[in-house]
Amino acid sequence: MIELEPLPQGSITTPRGFRAAAVACGLKKNSALDLALVVADVPCAAAALFTTNRVQAAPILYDKRVLAHHASDLRGVVINSGCANACTGERGLQDAEATAQAAASRLGGEAGNYMVMSTGVIGQHLPMDKILRGIEMAIPNLSACEAAGHEAAHAIITTDTRPKEAAVRARWGGGSCLVAGMAKGSGMIHPNLATMLCLITTDARITPALAQHALRQAAEVSLNRVTVDGDTSTNDTALLMASGLADMPLIASPEEEAYEAFSQGLKAVLTALAKEIARDGEGASHFIEIVVRGAANEAEAKQVAKAIAHSPLVKTAIYGQDANWGRIVCAAGYSGVPVDPDRMRVWLGDLELFREGRPYDINEARAKEILAQPEVRITVDLQMGESEVTVWTCDLTHRYIDINAHYRT
Amino acid sequence: MIELEPLPQGSITTPRGFRAAAVACGLKKNSALDLALVVADVPCAAAALFTTNRVQAAPILYDKRVLAHHASDLRGVVINSGCANACTGERGLQDAEATAQAAASRLGGEAGNYMVMSTGVIGQHLPMDKILRGIEMAIPNLSACEAAGHEAAHAIITTDTRPKEAAVRARWGGGSCLVAGMAKGSGMIHPNLATMLCLITTDARITPALAQHALRQAAEVSLNRVTVDGDTSTNDTALLMASGLADMPLIASPEEEAYEAFSQGLKAVLTALAKEIARDGEGASHFIEIVVRGAANEAEAKQVAKAIAHSPLVKTAIYGQDANWGRIVCAAGYSGVPVDPDRMRVWLGDLELFREGRPYDINEARAKEILAQPEVRITVDLQMGESEVTVWTCDLTHRYIDINAHYRT
Repeated sequence: MIELEPLPQGSITTPRGFRAAAVACGLKKNSALDLALVVADVPCAAAALFTTNRVQAAPILYDKRVLAHHASDLRGVVINSGCANACTGERGLQDAEATAQAAASRLGGEAGNYMVMSTGVIGQHLPMDKILRGIEMAIPNLSACEAAGHEAAHAIITTDTRPKEAAVRARWGGGSCLVAGMAKGSGMIHPNLATMLCLITTDARITPALAQHALRQAAEVSLNRVTVDGDTSTNDTALLMASGLADMPLIASPEEEAYEAFSQGLKAVLTALAKEIARDGEGASHFIEIVVRGAANEAEAKQVAKAIAHSPLVKTAIYGQDANWGRIVCAAGYSGVPVDPDRMRVWLGDLELFREGRPYDINEARAKEILAQPEVRITVDLQMGESEVTVWTCDLTHRYIDINAHYRT
Repeated sequence: MIELEPLPQGSITTPRGFRAAAVACGLKKNSALDLALVVADVPCAAAALFTTNRVQAAPILYDKRVLAHHASDLRGVVINSGCANACTGERGLQDAEATAQAAASRLGGEAGNYMVMSTGVIGQHLPMDKILRGIEMAIPNLSACEAAGHEAAHAIITTDTRPKEAAVRARWGGGSCLVAGMAKGSGMIHPNLATMLCLITTDARITPALAQHALRQAAEVSLNRVTVDGDTSTNDTALLMASGLADMPLIASPEEEAYEAFSQGLKAVLTALAKEIARDGEGASHFIEIVVRGAANEAEAKQVAKAIAHSPLVKTAIYGQDANWGRIVCAAGYSGVPVDPDRMRVWLGDLELFREGRPYDINEARAKEILAQPEVRITVDLQMGESEVTVWTCDLTHRYIDINAHYRT
């Protein structure tokens, strides 16, 4: 009997064994928090997923080496916003390692026990004086209180309007563990992964291999189901650190109930973060949930859902509160999946818009009511099979243009 | 020796054997021209390309039947804007045929000798009373003068800010022919084909099979190289009508100089129209030419160019006149092509921005000058091979959102 208890006040310091601190070291303007340090009291099992972009920022290249050698003894992570350390060549890689080394020399262990994550403008070198001073400033403030986790969640955001956090307690017959996460999203958001940084902490006792398995499976139905603008960034990282300090035996097999409980907790946290990323997409005025069902298989369901989620025309119609179902049907049509328009059905919320190749009798007043809400669900039934997938996105607004026309300058 | 002579005043009535008329039949508001009738004096060889969207509007389904049976004796085409006759089921197909039948019963021949094209809102039935009255009104106005062609070009646009026309005379050793075209583009523009209607007229004498071959090859490097928003419409059609009234022998082989001259003329017309479609993309403030060279093959060059052309972040940066080359490199990175950032080079106009994985010393003042121009060229050299492709698009602006948030209502 598995139970998940949401912990609305939780943060990445809620699971046992983690301390966090956040400082303003001058990477962002206006003295905003821009560097987070998260440290474990014990060596952690680590798992991570990285961007599929061929252009990989220095932190990605560095972290992959760490994961290959220190998946059983990760000690902490330094996360900065304001500068992505991407397209920065050999010097960028040296800066990433120097950041980890600075943490190690003050906190113990070696550089390889620490990961780094960066987000912000591409093509600028990390101002290392600020980063190193930031680490110095953060260390005395490291704290296991939940507020320290909340501050860390603030420090990693860029154009996000708010931090994104989630935490749950997962219970099973023999015990319980805590899983928590924080993420930054907003723009350049497109799965594999969403453009984002995400740190998950847990006190579950689990091997690195099983942690990696669980993270990959959970990300597939959460982080990889959110899109804002279809741009896959150079810096996407989802890192899971497991302290093993929960009172439980080591999870050694995916058949165990404890594994299932941990996995469900992880999925719940990542799904909450993924939806928050869509809800807070750059300039978003509507959160859009797209459900594609009746597909021949899951891959096709996802392909149709993504085509709809990526369509600028669908996204602007929702922004304009216009029940323009023709654009939804059109996007499904060019998705590459051999859909049959004569079988397709489309709903906006509970209002049917399209059936059997023809417009359904549309109640425009009801459509207006549905589109006046900040959360909108589009359901498409392909009537070709049994598979279903849900994807989250947001609308495309004037504010998105405002934000992105002058981001770098 | 092949020569192409641009005819700046030309229209689709410039080639011998074509008459056109345009009327306002009430599909658009404000008494704007919304129906064009183009008729040939003789049965024409026809070739056509249609949308790859699985959801195909009634005119597409109808025209495919016409092309299958009447590629040697097409007599005319009726084009309306304001209503796409898409997702309209069996009745939509009947309406398409009734439109053709109305033209045939007044102009001679049978319904199968006439094609139809529609563009506008998806999911509404054609108001047949208006369409039929429009055809009646148009017939007495049919004229071979160039002004009649210009009016037809006006009648087919929707959110376009101006009509798109091009014409050339192609000369070779033994003779000459005329090729002219008109198109509507603007939104829901993405190759295979661009979302658009395009009619090309020519007086070349050519077989339907060779006309189809030439059209497919010319479209691949013109209409299929333009993208506005990545949405492939339900109605895309490019139709070529060849009257054969030029003083020349029938082109019977692609080896003939006359075929080469005709093909070059066709490419010139389609390229001019494609660039005009990008230049007049919905809300566009910049025309963007993206050249990807040094690719391993043409498919990969196109894939990288399209990824850059589709990126909302690249498009908003150009709108904001921000030389944010990081977004260009990032888009190349997620294109799916195994690019190597350490070899990639990026230019904005003649200004190098990125080389060997590192930012090049950027002259921001020069970048500002380049981006202040209405036409911008981005060049990416992958340094992986010899292939090169050029793609055209436009920036993503506040005005695009204005236009598309309330299109239907």
